Amino acid sequence: MPESNALPLVLLTEQFAKLPGIGMKSAQRLAYHVMSMSEQDAKTFADAIANIHSRVHLCKRGQNFTDKDICPVCASSKRDHSLVCVVESPKDISAFEGSREFNGVYHVLHGLLSPMENIGPQDLKITELLKRIEPEGITEVIMATNPTVEGESTAMYISKLLKPLGVKVTRLAFGLPVGGTLEYADKETLNEAIKNRNEMK
Amino acid sequence: MPESNALPLVLLTEQFAKLPGIGMKSAQRLAYHVMSMSEQDAKTFADAIANIHSRVHLCKRGQNFTDKDICPVCASSKRDHSLVCVVESPKDISAFEGSREFNGVYHVLHGLLSPMENIGPQDLKITELLKRIEPEGITEVIMATNPTVEGESTAMYISKLLKPLGVKVTRLAFGLPVGGTLEYADKETLNEAIKNRNEMK
Repeated sequence: MPESNALPLVLLTEQFAKLPGIGMKSAQRLAYHVMSMSEQDAKTFADAIANIHSRVHLCKRGQNFTDKDICPVCASSKRDHSLVCVVESPKDISAFEGSREFNGVYHVLHGLLSPMENIGPQDLKITELLKRIEPEGITEVIMATNPTVEGESTAMYISKLLKPLGVKVTRLAFGLPVGGTLEYADKETLNEAIKNRNEMK
Repeated sequence: MPESNALPLVLLTEQFAKLPGIGMKSAQRLAYHVMSMSEQDAKTFADAIANIHSRVHLCKRGQNFTDKDICPVCASSKRDHSLVCVVESPKDISAFEGSREFNGVYHVLHGLLSPMENIGPQDLKITELLKRIEPEGITEVIMATNPTVEGESTAMYISKLLKPLGVKVTRLAFGLPVGGTLEYADKETLNEAIKNRNEMK
């Protein structure tokens, strides 16, 4: 950045530019925006960032982020605790909760197996999942990792560990996205859609 | 946001969503990213935001953001202090400095006249500009506000105040963007390009 900028503004710009999906130009715009906020508003924003680590930790059951011992979903008496949906990250839970279809509980792996990036089973919350099965009376585990190479192999690996425990392991259905058109469907998706076709009633 | 999220994360997401150009989805991604940063890195980020107001203020001459009394541009002996470029906001200075063509100094208005938004001359750094002319020996003022209705009328208004002071007032040239094509130029730009045509040498 040119010398015309004050050093604290340059430093703040660099901080913003470290965030995912934010380039130098956007980062600069954000830094100027903070400068245009009231000092009190900037303080509130800064506090929200500074305190997040001390206030938020992992739920002892489902491993989702929470500010309590057990997160609201795991603590809810209205949810089906025999059905667990295994996801890669906490933001996947927001997607499921947004659809309002799923009434079971969750387990967050906090990553996917990836030999390329040196991420092995010990780096994921897999032991924590296995330990939940018996005490919580879990009867079905839905593997809801993304349909990528890492997602598939992680689902496969965990399902092999779960089956000996006598629990039903299922996988999210693959097929055409609702509202999508055949024209734009890729080959793999189309193959899955044909393979998993259902009888019309 | 669904109940599945920890309150501090919801609050942080809302803080990010207040920033310009960041929607709820991006804001959530950024909040999760802060959660994945080390506690020390989050602290550094928060401090950069919290301290910006106390560390950065307006340069006493050019009104740009600075952490000193006089900003480096206004203090530089290598720049032409008789030539002042008047801009709407500090980020416009970065654009000029990036082009490395301009060697004068700047004056930041911190806004444009806008009767619609109730912004009058007293809300801009206009008096500060008029006070600089004589003591600093300024001979030319380039009005470099954007070519919008507000930018044009602000330039016009200020030029009328400057002319009685015996200073030359100029306006940035309008025309085709370099590298652009006629096909995509709008009518107004094309009209300006014809009106301001130059003899080829």
